[in-house]
Amino acid sequence: MLDSVLERIDADLEAAIGRWSELLKIPSVSTDSAYGDDMRRAAEWLVATLEPLGFSVEIRETDGHPVVLGHHPGPGGDAPHLLYYGHYDVQPPDPVEAWHAAPFQPTLVDGPYGRQMVARGAVDDKGQLMMWVEALRAWHAEHGELPVAVTVLIEGEEEVGSKNLRPFLERAKDELAADVCVVSDTTMWDVDTPAITYTLRGLLYAEVTCRGPDHDLHSGFYGGAIANPLNALATIIGRLRDADGRVRVPGFYDDIEEPSREELAGWAALDMDDQAFLEGAGVGVSGGGEADRSLLERLWSRPTCDVNGLIGGFTGEGAKTVIPTHGSAKISFRLVPQQDPDKLVRALREFLDNETPPGCVCDLTIHSSAPAIRVPTESPYLKAARTALKRVYDRDAVLMGCGGSIPIAAWARDILGIDTLLMGFSLGDDGMHSPNEKFEVTCFHRGARSHAALLEELRPKSR
Amino acid sequence: MLDSVLERIDADLEAAIGRWSELLKIPSVSTDSAYGDDMRRAAEWLVATLEPLGFSVEIRETDGHPVVLGHHPGPGGDAPHLLYYGHYDVQPPDPVEAWHAAPFQPTLVDGPYGRQMVARGAVDDKGQLMMWVEALRAWHAEHGELPVAVTVLIEGEEEVGSKNLRPFLERAKDELAADVCVVSDTTMWDVDTPAITYTLRGLLYAEVTCRGPDHDLHSGFYGGAIANPLNALATIIGRLRDADGRVRVPGFYDDIEEPSREELAGWAALDMDDQAFLEGAGVGVSGGGEADRSLLERLWSRPTCDVNGLIGGFTGEGAKTVIPTHGSAKISFRLVPQQDPDKLVRALREFLDNETPPGCVCDLTIHSSAPAIRVPTESPYLKAARTALKRVYDRDAVLMGCGGSIPIAAWARDILGIDTLLMGFSLGDDGMHSPNEKFEVTCFHRGARSHAALLEELRPKSR
Repeated sequence: MLDSVLERIDADLEAAIGRWSELLKIPSVSTDSAYGDDMRRAAEWLVATLEPLGFSVEIRETDGHPVVLGHHPGPGGDAPHLLYYGHYDVQPPDPVEAWHAAPFQPTLVDGPYGRQMVARGAVDDKGQLMMWVEALRAWHAEHGELPVAVTVLIEGEEEVGSKNLRPFLERAKDELAADVCVVSDTTMWDVDTPAITYTLRGLLYAEVTCRGPDHDLHSGFYGGAIANPLNALATIIGRLRDADGRVRVPGFYDDIEEPSREELAGWAALDMDDQAFLEGAGVGVSGGGEADRSLLERLWSRPTCDVNGLIGGFTGEGAKTVIPTHGSAKISFRLVPQQDPDKLVRALREFLDNETPPGCVCDLTIHSSAPAIRVPTESPYLKAARTALKRVYDRDAVLMGCGGSIPIAAWARDILGIDTLLMGFSLGDDGMHSPNEKFEVTCFHRGARSHAALLEELRPKSR
Repeated sequence: MLDSVLERIDADLEAAIGRWSELLKIPSVSTDSAYGDDMRRAAEWLVATLEPLGFSVEIRETDGHPVVLGHHPGPGGDAPHLLYYGHYDVQPPDPVEAWHAAPFQPTLVDGPYGRQMVARGAVDDKGQLMMWVEALRAWHAEHGELPVAVTVLIEGEEEVGSKNLRPFLERAKDELAADVCVVSDTTMWDVDTPAITYTLRGLLYAEVTCRGPDHDLHSGFYGGAIANPLNALATIIGRLRDADGRVRVPGFYDDIEEPSREELAGWAALDMDDQAFLEGAGVGVSGGGEADRSLLERLWSRPTCDVNGLIGGFTGEGAKTVIPTHGSAKISFRLVPQQDPDKLVRALREFLDNETPPGCVCDLTIHSSAPAIRVPTESPYLKAARTALKRVYDRDAVLMGCGGSIPIAAWARDILGIDTLLMGFSLGDDGMHSPNEKFEVTCFHRGARSHAALLEELRPKSR
């Protein structure tokens, strides 16, 4: 049954690119309330796209941006039930001036692997979610039904920490009953080597505001007598990590589950090209993490502390001799298995209390938190995915870790009681969250084929 | 001759307030090029104000904002020659939302000492310079001439470090020949106790930009492998000072000339109310400087390192998991006698080179630099000022230090070969550089009287 589906995907590629472009044109930036209408337009577009594929689908409200929820009964009987997860929100496009073309005007350009789609969200996650939508479309078109039962869940707050998804999952738990969650939001090993991701780091995203005097002061008349909240903020941030890149928040490393010797050996066997990775990042040398760990270990199995934003005082042209009232830092911690975000929030609060000098106070706001995740590598779904990928790529899939965070994976496990299959088709240089984000058309195309092949693998063969 | 001059100042007060308001309405913000036209308007206003007082006065160009230069021959003979210095530029009004009224719409409000003028520049330096302009006006009006020869020099770049004043002084050295420079840009001890300032801190204003990757990176996919320039910047700033508030730039304290035992005893005798000072600053406790020095010592005789502005990465609403390309900090150092700004720039550059982690580089820009200054306390001009102040206030003037920086004082000494008389009438709570900057009308009034009395003291008595 698969061959005709794959042929249809091949024949329909240009139309699929057109549909993908339509979604990319909607500037669904979740973090900025100015884009509220666009968020809803993106959700409505997805509803209109899924309905013709046989889904009963609707927009469901949350306390934030809405969720798109759809159901397709599949063939019935003992067919497995897949929960496809994706997100229709994207990162802000700034710095906008760094883009070669308008970020919400998708553009096809030529690259080393053929055409690339360039746009905010090209890969993350609009490109990756449209791959499985196209696979479902091709199955539906060829066979008039889907080979498995499918629930589709597409949220609008992944880029801001999925704050309202968790309560939604709890409320809609029964409706979301499925055997496995399928997500395409991760990378391949390289353009010809598919990969399945089995570990994801978690994320604790905090904002620290250090407050000093209640009005701006002249640094000549007060400097030396008054604690400057910007000096204090910088000092506190500086002290968050030691000279070896280890986080100094007490207890930060206490609960970490280290990867097994076998895993480490597997990662070493991947023979990662560190230099190519660093060049792709636009830096000459590695840095910023624990110097005694390999690059892959630092990315896949070690926690981090990264300052994502800093602001305070006079930031205009030239000079102003001011001791300002306050300054703020956005600070995110990537978490690894067994680190407890709630426990770390308490430890961070205590750290701030201990490090804040007299004359200043620090406010702590938590924007989001999610624990790390590990997926069992021996599940039938993961095996089916390996077979499907082998069929499309004629090459074994690599089992990878991922430094990023996908909260759904932890919540699917904790709330819905199911594992997540992370089968992604992004490349390391796709520029997720960066200007000129792109997705290779070949990855999009073979990704859609892989999703179609996965459906074939999971189709009950007794039928 | 003085009595009628003082009477005229008293009678003319409301008109003087009107003239002062006219100048305050011109938003002459030197640091922001958007206000270029207003800068010129302020200079033209001053020319038009000085001309009727018998000055030959004109706008003189520099590489930045122009200088107003005027000459009045005075009575001739052995009359001393005074060089009045002031600045017509003001600090930016931001944060504008913190003002109770528009910053360039001067407003008179009632305060504990009578009326206060509220506006950006009310005191710094438009209010203080208009005091001596009004004293010159009253002398001119009463006697048809001035009792001494006067040169007036009013620059437009004091708030941005007077970068172009130094070359102007060098070029116009002969035209600026005088016996003493007179400046009103400092504070009184309190509203009824006049003061003469005899030490000023210098200023080195630097901007450090820390650069990392050449494009924004996803903190999940790169965090732990890549040096984050915001973490690096914060760490470097944090390490600029030790836990005791001492600057860690090598050699920073090497050349400092400590105040004498007599000076320290004099300062101690002032019996400063530390708590009132801190409450005026809107903080509960002192901090930010060397813990083992008194507040007055830290303000008048110790150098500082204050962060005046910080910016980098994502500073919008919510969260963005980005490792940005760069971050910047504006950092100013107040300097004390014998510290050499040029030497400290080299030491700071070296400090940055040593502290910047692999994967980052730090650019260093110097916005301005000026050494500290000490004025001899036994000069005839200083004695004349003490007599004049005693006459107006019926109280001895206090000899004060000042934590701020007035580059003209060092350059008058080094380039013009003359001392500077710092006779200022601001109060500590005037909010210079802050929102709702104000100047007490009683200070303005008695300041104008004091300047008139100073002219009487310096008038050749043989005439």
